[in-house]
Amino acid sequence: MRAFPNTDERINKPDGVILLALAAALFCLPSASRSQEQQQPGVFSDKQLRQAVELRDLALSSADAFRHVASLTMEVGPRLAGTSGDKAAVAWALATMHELGLQNVRAEDVTVSHWERGTIEVGITMPYPQPLAATALGGSIGTPTDGIEAPIIRVADLDELSATPDNEVAGKIVFFDRRMQASKDGDDYTETVKARRDGPAKAAAKGAIAVIIRSVGTSSARLPHTGRTRYDDAIRQIPAAAISNPDADMLAMQLAGGEAVTVKMNMSARYLEDERSANVIGEIRGASRPDEIVILAAHLDSWDLGTGAIDDAAGIGIVLETAAQIIRSGRKPARTIRILLAADEEFGLSGAKAYADRHMAELHSHVVGMEADFGDGKVWRISTLFPDDRLEIATAIHAPLESLGIELGDNKTGSGADISEFKKLGMPVISLGQDGTDYFDYHHTASDTLDKVNPENLRQVVAAFVTATWLAASGDVDFGFREPEEETEE
Amino acid sequence: MRAFPNTDERINKPDGVILLALAAALFCLPSASRSQEQQQPGVFSDKQLRQAVELRDLALSSADAFRHVASLTMEVGPRLAGTSGDKAAVAWALATMHELGLQNVRAEDVTVSHWERGTIEVGITMPYPQPLAATALGGSIGTPTDGIEAPIIRVADLDELSATPDNEVAGKIVFFDRRMQASKDGDDYTETVKARRDGPAKAAAKGAIAVIIRSVGTSSARLPHTGRTRYDDAIRQIPAAAISNPDADMLAMQLAGGEAVTVKMNMSARYLEDERSANVIGEIRGASRPDEIVILAAHLDSWDLGTGAIDDAAGIGIVLETAAQIIRSGRKPARTIRILLAADEEFGLSGAKAYADRHMAELHSHVVGMEADFGDGKVWRISTLFPDDRLEIATAIHAPLESLGIELGDNKTGSGADISEFKKLGMPVISLGQDGTDYFDYHHTASDTLDKVNPENLRQVVAAFVTATWLAASGDVDFGFREPEEETEE
Repeated sequence: MRAFPNTDERINKPDGVILLALAAALFCLPSASRSQEQQQPGVFSDKQLRQAVELRDLALSSADAFRHVASLTMEVGPRLAGTSGDKAAVAWALATMHELGLQNVRAEDVTVSHWERGTIEVGITMPYPQPLAATALGGSIGTPTDGIEAPIIRVADLDELSATPDNEVAGKIVFFDRRMQASKDGDDYTETVKARRDGPAKAAAKGAIAVIIRSVGTSSARLPHTGRTRYDDAIRQIPAAAISNPDADMLAMQLAGGEAVTVKMNMSARYLEDERSANVIGEIRGASRPDEIVILAAHLDSWDLGTGAIDDAAGIGIVLETAAQIIRSGRKPARTIRILLAADEEFGLSGAKAYADRHMAELHSHVVGMEADFGDGKVWRISTLFPDDRLEIATAIHAPLESLGIELGDNKTGSGADISEFKKLGMPVISLGQDGTDYFDYHHTASDTLDKVNPENLRQVVAAFVTATWLAASGDVDFGFREPEEETEE
Repeated sequence: MRAFPNTDERINKPDGVILLALAAALFCLPSASRSQEQQQPGVFSDKQLRQAVELRDLALSSADAFRHVASLTMEVGPRLAGTSGDKAAVAWALATMHELGLQNVRAEDVTVSHWERGTIEVGITMPYPQPLAATALGGSIGTPTDGIEAPIIRVADLDELSATPDNEVAGKIVFFDRRMQASKDGDDYTETVKARRDGPAKAAAKGAIAVIIRSVGTSSARLPHTGRTRYDDAIRQIPAAAISNPDADMLAMQLAGGEAVTVKMNMSARYLEDERSANVIGEIRGASRPDEIVILAAHLDSWDLGTGAIDDAAGIGIVLETAAQIIRSGRKPARTIRILLAADEEFGLSGAKAYADRHMAELHSHVVGMEADFGDGKVWRISTLFPDDRLEIATAIHAPLESLGIELGDNKTGSGADISEFKKLGMPVISLGQDGTDYFDYHHTASDTLDKVNPENLRQVVAAFVTATWLAASGDVDFGFREPEEETEE
């Protein structure tokens, strides 16, 4: 009896459907997960669980998110906010949603910045001249037309910069040289990206004339990574670029020699006029609770260097195919499942902000939010951000995910950026954490291309998304709503 | 007794040195190799074997070939024949040989072609416009200033091109789309490189106006590989470029859609005036047979995209450190050990040809040749090209290499390109085959940089080279000379 806890009372119920569901579960699931799937009788109905498991198993064998990824990356390709690719992506998303049978398909206008990477040449000029593979950080200004040439000093990170006297920084180029470590959850990104985001402003405040960072990435390919930097309105803007890991090694090695090292940079990055883009939205309308929304987000824009396959065509494929699997099943959820393909996640989050502004009146109708923006890795952990008294829901959602190799994480997850505005205001969040061990080998580089996406992995991810989505949307489980978060300075 | 064959008579010799050598061998070597090291009493003396083993073990713990690789790649960097980097490499080599204590250090003039890569832009213009990461093949002409735009057709290889009617090729760009497979001995390179070498001439003969090849490499990084192509004097020259594997995937996918695909190419590659370069040579003069030469070669030039770390700074480091280890030991070889750092292996083999021309009178003084030009991988196999009646020498050289994890291969090896002229004329060759499983991830791309070189691997390689070199040079073992090879059209 210990092997099948909590099952007796249901087996004794005069309900053939439940017996069928149990039988199906016993036949279809590895033994390790059998018991858990039945452990939370109070959270989801047996019917919901049975349907979720059916959808899950169908997705494992039939989901074809890869097709959407291939289509978006081949037919549209790079789609940086404001570019023609960005507009083509919006058209692609509208057409694809219609084709998949989503309802209320629409584009909601978003105004986006339009920054142009331009050309770049960076090289060591002393003591040993060497070209460096470099790219502008997103939002950087360019250099004067003739470029700039100056001594360069190395600091590991913002802390070391802060500890360096201003007179050692003034008039120089600052080289931030922290190497990112790969891991399953990619958590070293958070620490390493600080110099990319804030380094130029902090260095300029000390009198630096430009910044070069070691790419925030884990690849040994000689391809620099890009990503947004942000200036401080009160501080002079200075040009900022990233160099690849091998180039950072070269620069660090020349600096380690003890001789003065000078670097020349010439960049033509600049801003053009703002452009119009759009959040693209489609829904599966809820049958009985249509005004309650389970939102699944991914972002439609990408950086310009690659074709945005892992970032975030993979996420687009995952959330679109999650909807497609549910539509094809013929099942109608109680709640509305809303797919948000957000504009401009990479450059300014203007899509996320525009969605929040436009839908603020619906804030409390957002029952729970999920986002796919971490590539093609299999889901290995489900984490949540629920009110503290609703943790049994997390356990109940986890049960049918266990056979997919997914463990139950904590209740402290962040969210993807596209749903972060409502998350800050208290919307519950489910994070299906994907294995990102190799994500930062390709992320924000020219190598972010379709060949990095594993179709088999995506099937598992869709299976996880469809399971969680169905459990959240098919009944009336009350996720509650969290307290709004306090504003903290990042 | 079966466990130690052929040892009895030596143990019974009244020679304390031999007993010492045996004791040392028994203590120092894994049991698997003990017996083999003593198996060929007729080939090398016990003293030679003992010295070889001592040099081998010292190299394993002390050899620092990596230092030479770091110095060459950092202080000189890219060194394509004819460029200022090429001249700097010659100066570096002369200075380094002097520093390491080699004798008869000199630069022997070589006239080299000077080709300039220039700029390149390649992109699909229909049906789905996409930029393609491309680079010119070495020796390619450029396009007209305005570029060329034409339909593209895909063929797998030269055979498929040959089977395609001329009227389907005329006026088009030909896309050679064979994907190279990785392996320990890199043998798929031989097959895949045919289209790079001969594709432009063969396609032009059928009326094609340009060629694009899938990079002859195994990496998924979006970095195209370069390498020499050769035109046919009787056929019009057409521009030729390589695109990276992900870009070839993109192009193939668009072609697979069935719609006409057009590509635009704009390249400014061109030849400049011939330049002077040099083979750099240094020696450890033989004590008793100075006119007999054991030659160790590597090439000093590199392609221009990376810093030529695996190709062939690694080889330069290996052969220089092999000499340095022998010099530091204070032992004097009987024969002369000659280190040849050849010019222009990549672009025209003019260094190898100039060496052969200049030293033709010495041809039969070249007892045996070795070359290091396959990166930083550990040696896993020794193969030879000896006269058929000298195979016992291969077995005898292999014995002390076995504990390094090296197996005995066949007697059909080719040689590196730098000693190929004398090899064709009959010089015996020893090939220490390095593990090249990842070699073609970096070879001829911008990613050929110092971080790809493993210092520990290099120690094992130097240990193998020093062992084989000492056995060949320290006594009078007669390698014989092979019959000259018949000319065959490649």
